[in-house]
Amino acid sequence: MSVIGKPLLFSYWRSSCSWRVRIALNLKEIPYDIKPVSLIKNGGEQHSNEYREINPMEHVPALQIDGHTLIESCSIMHYLEETRPQRALMPQDVYKRAKVREICDLICTGVQPLQNLVVLIYVGEEKKREWAQHWITRGFRAVEKLLSSTAGKYCVGDEITLADCCLIPQVFSARRFQVDLRPFPIILRVDRELENHPAFRAAHPSSQPDCPPEATK
Amino acid sequence: MSVIGKPLLFSYWRSSCSWRVRIALNLKEIPYDIKPVSLIKNGGEQHSNEYREINPMEHVPALQIDGHTLIESCSIMHYLEETRPQRALMPQDVYKRAKVREICDLICTGVQPLQNLVVLIYVGEEKKREWAQHWITRGFRAVEKLLSSTAGKYCVGDEITLADCCLIPQVFSARRFQVDLRPFPIILRVDRELENHPAFRAAHPSSQPDCPPEATK
Repeated sequence: MSVIGKPLLFSYWRSSCSWRVRIALNLKEIPYDIKPVSLIKNGGEQHSNEYREINPMEHVPALQIDGHTLIESCSIMHYLEETRPQRALMPQDVYKRAKVREICDLICTGVQPLQNLVVLIYVGEEKKREWAQHWITRGFRAVEKLLSSTAGKYCVGDEITLADCCLIPQVFSARRFQVDLRPFPIILRVDRELENHPAFRAAHPSSQPDCPPEATK
Repeated sequence: MSVIGKPLLFSYWRSSCSWRVRIALNLKEIPYDIKPVSLIKNGGEQHSNEYREINPMEHVPALQIDGHTLIESCSIMHYLEETRPQRALMPQDVYKRAKVREICDLICTGVQPLQNLVVLIYVGEEKKREWAQHWITRGFRAVEKLLSSTAGKYCVGDEITLADCCLIPQVFSARRFQVDLRPFPIILRVDRELENHPAFRAAHPSSQPDCPPEATK
């Protein structure tokens, strides 16, 4: 498989980490191809020998771009930001940049890892919803508090940033695990603001080539 | 409490996330004061109303600097890097920067959150060692693989980077949970390389003002 030419994103339709990168690629209008990696078929294609060579963590996403293979969604988005400055997704101001990274890190280290598929398998079918609700609710309480001093139209001010790329997929996961979102009015407002944005719509799980037909309704 | 003047780090001696920031501050020779936050006393001082105003995620660290309160260790380290360029902790090359962030993110999203104190409490006393060993070993397998193509004297090449600030505290946690580190020779080599570095030694849990005397041996 060539790594030169159009970037190739190893992605799973419902993975919030893949989704973050899809949003960033779309916002920056970078054309890319998708190679679906099913996290459930055959015990998970991410555990195959072939994919482990691409991403030794056996996670999606991975991005082949500029002759390199990159992993970890936030790292990938920062690489895109540093190499494709068009449609900046980070503010210029250092304090605002810190706030964007704070929101990203809070979601990417404090929420998502605990509702990752491998963890949910370990937790078990019976307890997994309660477990996911616990950690998402806990994280959203903190995100809502941060947003109360940073949000404009979006997470940080009135420009879309990497924080929004992280937040929107996490709201989808929250709904999937039936988290009560009523205590989080700012999160809900930003989510509503972005749900019909073309870059976010095209990145949505239901718009993905590997989305099963029964999930597109 | 003033937020102007010398930076104030809210830190717990054994917290790997606090430790990362202590290393970065030391490497950059930024003088700072420490305000210890005990994660165990009185059910955890990080859950107090006073601290929740500082860090709504109820985690350490938090850093008061330049009139701002910042949270999330990687975000804080990037802020230091952007505002205090002396003794750079990120390479200039965009690809190497991506590799540094990859290693940081792999540890900060794929390993540390799963052996965080709040998670271990949820997992329970009986199962916590096995749980921590499982996730640390899984993550270190991936880190070792990444290092096989990035490491020089340190994680990425021959200069100390943010990746090293994240790796060393994670190795300490691995030992604490009695993870078998023999399969990870590069991780062990980088750890040995840095164990006597003054900035790393001064940031070590045993050098902290809140380290209990019985743990300093």
